[in-house]
Amino acid sequence: MKKIEVPLIYANRIINHGCVILVTSKYKDKSNIITLAWQMPVSHKPKLVSIAVHKKHFSHMLITKSKEFIINIPTRTVIDAIHFCGSVSGREIDKFRKTGFTEIEARYLNAPLIKECIGHMECRVKKIYAGGDHTIFLGEVLRVVVNEGVFDGKFLRLDNPRVQTLHHLGENRYMVSGVVIQAV
Amino acid sequence: MKKIEVPLIYANRIINHGCVILVTSKYKDKSNIITLAWQMPVSHKPKLVSIAVHKKHFSHMLITKSKEFIINIPTRTVIDAIHFCGSVSGREIDKFRKTGFTEIEARYLNAPLIKECIGHMECRVKKIYAGGDHTIFLGEVLRVVVNEGVFDGKFLRLDNPRVQTLHHLGENRYMVSGVVIQAV
Repeated sequence: MKKIEVPLIYANRIINHGCVILVTSKYKDKSNIITLAWQMPVSHKPKLVSIAVHKKHFSHMLITKSKEFIINIPTRTVIDAIHFCGSVSGREIDKFRKTGFTEIEARYLNAPLIKECIGHMECRVKKIYAGGDHTIFLGEVLRVVVNEGVFDGKFLRLDNPRVQTLHHLGENRYMVSGVVIQAV
Repeated sequence: MKKIEVPLIYANRIINHGCVILVTSKYKDKSNIITLAWQMPVSHKPKLVSIAVHKKHFSHMLITKSKEFIINIPTRTVIDAIHFCGSVSGREIDKFRKTGFTEIEARYLNAPLIKECIGHMECRVKKIYAGGDHTIFLGEVLRVVVNEGVFDGKFLRLDNPRVQTLHHLGENRYMVSGVVIQAV
């Protein structure tokens, strides 16, 4: 599937509706995938997004040392792999091998994109903030790409059956993206 | 509608799926409502949540000065009021009067709850972090209450037609919460 560039002005719109993300990171020869529900855009100028990562997680170390992370947007079709990547530690398990996810090279960063995801955001860490048992990593968005049919130039195309994002309710429960409506 | 306490251990679960929120704040005799899509839980112990608020917004001043904010969860039925509260400034307009929303007293804070919302989270500001053109307010959750039928003790009841949350895609477009599925 061809990956299409999204103008950075709309970078936040691929995660703005609060979907679950798969964050990839890499330091030296170690890479990992972590499932996160705790993400939010933070700024338009500069273009910043944030993720909250538990201090004990393997990805926490990788992101802290490498100063980069990649946000990948998975869909309903890979729900079991999503849940798996949020339930086990990358210290013991190679999650790419276990899930069968395929690595694609990023343009600006060492961490890989996950080919099976429909959208990707390459982020360079700008700030690291304390947040209780988690750490908030603030990343500047360097590049956003999506699969064909995922973004219409301004909005996520949630009407496309291939764009069913997941939203975490707790434990193994996920909400699937619903219909789109407009305010007056 | 009776408001029921939610154990703080599950506080994050009323916003974990990335819904749009209405944040209320009050400083001296000025109160306001602001619509936010940029929210995320941050920590389990202590129980922290975060919101990103544009530095120019009236609510930014109210929250900075009062060191408190309340997260209210609106549903599809009030989409036009939600969009209105995200489109105009509280400096010029009394949004409670304009929307017809009803104030309820909070237990711990001066800011009011919005009666027409289905869930509420009283938060005391613990940290204020710079985030580009926005500010990240980190709040400790003091209390969570929901309407009857909204939370089953562990999860949001998105199967209840009264619990259709909204998720912002950009401009006046919102996704409505969809079906719930489980990973194996």
